Amino acid sequence: MRPLKLSRAFTWIEPGPVVLVTTYDGTKYNVMTISWTMVVDFTPKLAITTGDWNYSYAALRRTRECVVAIPGVDLLDRVIGIGTCSGRDTDKFARFNLTAKPAKHVAAPLVGECLANIECKVVDVIRKHQIVVLEGLAAHVNPRRRERRTVHAVGDGTFVVDGRRLDRRTAMASKLPAGL
Amino acid sequence: MRPLKLSRAFTWIEPGPVVLVTTYDGTKYNVMTISWTMVVDFTPKLAITTGDWNYSYAALRRTRECVVAIPGVDLLDRVIGIGTCSGRDTDKFARFNLTAKPAKHVAAPLVGECLANIECKVVDVIRKHQIVVLEGLAAHVNPRRRERRTVHAVGDGTFVVDGRRLDRRTAMASKLPAGL
Repeated sequence: MRPLKLSRAFTWIEPGPVVLVTTYDGTKYNVMTISWTMVVDFTPKLAITTGDWNYSYAALRRTRECVVAIPGVDLLDRVIGIGTCSGRDTDKFARFNLTAKPAKHVAAPLVGECLANIECKVVDVIRKHQIVVLEGLAAHVNPRRRERRTVHAVGDGTFVVDGRRLDRRTAMASKLPAGL
Repeated sequence: MRPLKLSRAFTWIEPGPVVLVTTYDGTKYNVMTISWTMVVDFTPKLAITTGDWNYSYAALRRTRECVVAIPGVDLLDRVIGIGTCSGRDTDKFARFNLTAKPAKHVAAPLVGECLANIECKVVDVIRKHQIVVLEGLAAHVNPRRRERRTVHAVGDGTFVVDGRRLDRRTAMASKLPAGL
């Protein structure tokens, strides 16, 4: 993993890929699959929707930190496996053969296989809507990966893989944040 | 536009496409481009991040309703144009040659050129984070469109077009909502 400017971290979330969210409860690492995410500001702040239905939620609320990791499409079947079992009775890092790497600012681990990892602290929990607001503290990218496409959950059991990338930087210039 | 089961509306937002959000302030229609969106529940509730920097925000807060429309990739340059000018001094429906169609439950218009439209009411404004929570009231799809790919903003002026769709319905069965 190589450091990524924090001002670019939001560009991994804005396109809407499925992500993994890791936690550390003081005893063991855990990881969940989340497809309900949103950028909230460029610093970056991110929102995710999660709640008691995810075993990780207790650790997330108690430790107030996590890592948001962005998997490539080659990890899709592991991402689905992670999302359809529970850390309550499964060591998901072992079962899905994921490499937990130390983060800089949080005890939750980076996922070595992922394209990018964003270390986060919880800045707010909006219980009424089950929205958790995160602030990115540091970001990392994996420069050695050949497969760089992410995958988007549709919600009906199908997933859309990234296709072509279109460059509209000139047309978008007035809207891009400084220091990108 | 053909009616879409409301229980399927979230499947247009979960993959993370750029969307258009229309409003009607009592005098004129307006439309803004939003790429910071998130599903909050299956009913559906949706979150978007917006604020005073969008001229539409005043109408959204006052009328407490809008339409979330999902454009195809063929509309990308219009979507960027919509996102880089203001309804304060521009009739965007006229300038970008969009067809405003009557909605069922809200005064904000559907966008005839889009792949899908979700009529929404505002159920909460979380001012601290500039998050607006919407509830879908009705949904519509455009069955006549040939180009069905959506587009995902990266946030750096580039956009990723939908690629292949992978079917994982069997593996995901335990996680899919009833009545989809």
